[in-house]
Amino acid sequence: MLSNQVIETMLERKSIRQYKDESPSDEVVKTIVRAGQQAPFASQLCSLLLSRSREKNPLGAPLLFTLCVDFHKLELIMARRNWKMVTNDLSLLIFGIQDASLMAENMVIAGESLGLGSCFLGDAPYKAAQIAREYKLPKRVFPLVQLAMGYPAESPPPRPRYPMEFVLFEGEYPKFSEETIKEAMRQMDDGYLAQDYYRKADYMIPLEGGRPEEFTFDNYGWTEHISRKWGQWFPSPQDLLKQLAECGFRIGS
Amino acid sequence: MLSNQVIETMLERKSIRQYKDESPSDEVVKTIVRAGQQAPFASQLCSLLLSRSREKNPLGAPLLFTLCVDFHKLELIMARRNWKMVTNDLSLLIFGIQDASLMAENMVIAGESLGLGSCFLGDAPYKAAQIAREYKLPKRVFPLVQLAMGYPAESPPPRPRYPMEFVLFEGEYPKFSEETIKEAMRQMDDGYLAQDYYRKADYMIPLEGGRPEEFTFDNYGWTEHISRKWGQWFPSPQDLLKQLAECGFRIGS
Repeated sequence: MLSNQVIETMLERKSIRQYKDESPSDEVVKTIVRAGQQAPFASQLCSLLLSRSREKNPLGAPLLFTLCVDFHKLELIMARRNWKMVTNDLSLLIFGIQDASLMAENMVIAGESLGLGSCFLGDAPYKAAQIAREYKLPKRVFPLVQLAMGYPAESPPPRPRYPMEFVLFEGEYPKFSEETIKEAMRQMDDGYLAQDYYRKADYMIPLEGGRPEEFTFDNYGWTEHISRKWGQWFPSPQDLLKQLAECGFRIGS
Repeated sequence: MLSNQVIETMLERKSIRQYKDESPSDEVVKTIVRAGQQAPFASQLCSLLLSRSREKNPLGAPLLFTLCVDFHKLELIMARRNWKMVTNDLSLLIFGIQDASLMAENMVIAGESLGLGSCFLGDAPYKAAQIAREYKLPKRVFPLVQLAMGYPAESPPPRPRYPMEFVLFEGEYPKFSEETIKEAMRQMDDGYLAQDYYRKADYMIPLEGGRPEEFTFDNYGWTEHISRKWGQWFPSPQDLLKQLAECGFRIGS
């Protein structure tokens, strides 16, 4: 492994959920946003909403950025060039999510390099209409993800990841051996258990439908956690489609 | 604006489309992928395909990464925990695109810090079934975007971006004045024209439906370019939905 300040900053990054009182200066905020803006983009399909209200922000964070996929600005510009939007919303959304995420990751790493910690909050799409009212969003702007930021008041270790052999495939996608799958699970579960992650967070995803709890914080690991999430949540896309529709996005039709 | 090596690296980044013959070493590749892996993630819903065939890779790049949204690995793990996937594909896709893009941006900036240039190729979703055959992808793996990488054989300047007032909105989303929109357009168009971007690329998006060409490289700027793209391309989502379906994804139903 090679190393330098950029790569070290990336490898040291972890979610921060406790923040100091100190508010980052305007100069810090602008530097982070500017670094975000310079991310590669398809069509700059992203807007950032900022709240500095610690009382209202999740985790009591001094900064809360809401990253939105924004077709509104593009359509304003196209109108001034005598063009009308023709592309379907699903295609636009796939590009817009990429634009917003590339920008978000630059902001995370730029923030880290300036001593700030951050945490993504993934539920914005499911409360998009509410966020739209709060920030007075025009139609065609969709809140994708929120990013809390501030100076860290905790110092957890970086979190485990899959072995590289479970992520990078040269030439063709392999048929995984049972051993490879088990090893990926082991690395994630042992890693999280060694950090006592869920006990410290005091959180297990509750079992639905009367399934009896058979885990304790001694054996509840990452693979059980994500299995409960994707094995129980959001069976239907209807709510999400409704949130998208309220923001003026028509998907899949 | 504050600065440091991380932020400088981000601000210097631009797409590179010409590469030296030199192939990045295995150590360089692994460092870039490892930095990518440490990006924040929802559920590690990303896999990377790598091709080192300069003959086949677009732009003759020594490295071509195809970033895929991968539910297959998650489902293999869930099965071993006695869980079945319940979450709808649209929700999963929205999280998976974010996972893959956050990872991609770390790879871009880590690569840049090691002297490599890169270029995103956005058309993977529209040839997903073909890529799936080429790399023998199982169902539930969707090629999202490709990232060409190598040592740069050109040194263009960083590209213009919108003014920050057109991107960052504190408290609420503004109603833009005509002046603000025009200034954002001016900054992008004058910026690209000053760099002679489209003349050097020798590319204007052709007009469809017999519309007469009224632009030359002296006045064809970024806003005309993106207006032609989103004003002409992909009116229907059907092809994209078909590509998704062939990869085992059902969206919006």
